[in-house]
Amino acid sequence: MHNSLPTAVRIVEVGPRDGLQNEANPISTDTRVELINRLASAGVSAIESGSFVSPKWVPQMASSAAVFANIQRHTGVIYSALTPNMKGFEAAVLAGVDEVAVFAAASEGFSQKNINCSIDESIERFKPVVTAAREQGLPVRGYISCVVGCPYDGDIEPSKVLNVCQQLLALGCYEVSLGDTTGVATPGSMGTLLNTLLRDIPAQQLALHCHDTYGQALANILIGLQAGIATVDSSIAGLGGCPYARGATGNVATEDVVYMLEGMGISTGINLSQLVDTGRWISAQLGRETGSRVGRAL
Amino acid sequence: MHNSLPTAVRIVEVGPRDGLQNEANPISTDTRVELINRLASAGVSAIESGSFVSPKWVPQMASSAAVFANIQRHTGVIYSALTPNMKGFEAAVLAGVDEVAVFAAASEGFSQKNINCSIDESIERFKPVVTAAREQGLPVRGYISCVVGCPYDGDIEPSKVLNVCQQLLALGCYEVSLGDTTGVATPGSMGTLLNTLLRDIPAQQLALHCHDTYGQALANILIGLQAGIATVDSSIAGLGGCPYARGATGNVATEDVVYMLEGMGISTGINLSQLVDTGRWISAQLGRETGSRVGRAL
Repeated sequence: MHNSLPTAVRIVEVGPRDGLQNEANPISTDTRVELINRLASAGVSAIESGSFVSPKWVPQMASSAAVFANIQRHTGVIYSALTPNMKGFEAAVLAGVDEVAVFAAASEGFSQKNINCSIDESIERFKPVVTAAREQGLPVRGYISCVVGCPYDGDIEPSKVLNVCQQLLALGCYEVSLGDTTGVATPGSMGTLLNTLLRDIPAQQLALHCHDTYGQALANILIGLQAGIATVDSSIAGLGGCPYARGATGNVATEDVVYMLEGMGISTGINLSQLVDTGRWISAQLGRETGSRVGRAL
Repeated sequence: MHNSLPTAVRIVEVGPRDGLQNEANPISTDTRVELINRLASAGVSAIESGSFVSPKWVPQMASSAAVFANIQRHTGVIYSALTPNMKGFEAAVLAGVDEVAVFAAASEGFSQKNINCSIDESIERFKPVVTAAREQGLPVRGYISCVVGCPYDGDIEPSKVLNVCQQLLALGCYEVSLGDTTGVATPGSMGTLLNTLLRDIPAQQLALHCHDTYGQALANILIGLQAGIATVDSSIAGLGGCPYARGATGNVATEDVVYMLEGMGISTGINLSQLVDTGRWISAQLGRETGSRVGRAL
């Protein structure tokens, strides 16, 4: 079963955006900048660094332009940001982002609650953003929330995810990240989903974005690796979570993913001990315990 | 890759022994009895309920005879106990255990520290116990600690584990439980170990006993399932740990294992919601947060 495992995995670090956005304690722009710099120093090559959305919706991300202005750019590192609409996209371009991302959901209930429109409407809204980004040579990543379960709509059919996935790729996204937003997926449901998707979509265009609410994230990622997926989203110290998901646990911790990958002989380019130090540091800044088991054990 | 998955898994619940033995707060015999009764009611069919060792070594287990005298026996449930020597075995038989277990290690360092003798000496010590048990018709389970890593000896060669495993099976153990005592294993090292063992030992004679110190337990169990292993040790609410392992986290939580197995369509005979209630109850008795992510999320 190890034959199809990738030899290298690209970690997309989402802590500075997805993570901090969902933390109870706000942190300063300086600390967010330092977190991003530390992650880059540890060898993380893709860092979701901010979100250009209305500060009315997400006050934690109001400082994204300042963050981009102050980070120390490391060669080879992609600093990305969320841009749900043209206004956000223009602000992101001004801030000098390397890559932008658009957010859809696989369930109508979550789409309405999270971005206040239907799935079809969200795709329409993303069209000018993706077009403009591609004109400027900026890669666009697509996210899909609730790919297995939704707090409002319950179980999600893999065919629904396939449909949204294909629309995002058709728009021009180079990759779609599959979000198990509430962490309910198991290797069973994740395997079923990937079997459906991979009939029509190459593994190279898919990423996994697992939450560890039910402790299943690493097992689900393992299923993804075995299916040939080589891009994994994770969050330093397990920062964040989903405000609409029960349970306090957020994204799978980057430390735990990197520990597993290293143990499997899969390279990430990341220095685990520097990563663990960074997780310890940001947890101290937030006054919370780390959500990483590796961070606690080492 | 799902072709070789077992359709049913036997969970061996180790919380009342391995778990409670390693908890800081002692609990009463009555509470231990109630824990065992609740687990049986939830559908757990194999419960490690006590340990007949010198109370000088493990004072938490001094009440094992009283526990066995007071539990309500459920039909079809196996109540087992640790019996490291003849004295312990005789006490266990008097107490009416259904099954006994002997404990070896895959590393000399851990064997010396944990049971105060070499691996060879421990096997010699177990011989009369296994012989006596078989004469009385009692099944004997073998445990091996530190099958991947040891806090004293570092990485453990799979050939060492195979050697101890074969000796325990040759003695007359019906099954050997492979303990990742410090939780350092990853799907990489666990896969390598199982590849070695399964060349000579049928999967039916092996069980996995994973600790979640580095968050890898479910991923490691998944690798075991894919290799055909259908017996998994776990501990309600993630009780316990290893006093010699760094990090506070103990055994993988039964709730998290059952959640994963259910999601994979693998039956356990256990009612998850009753299990979660039991985990919540024992955590409250111990005055600690549950170590189960499923327990926290549901």
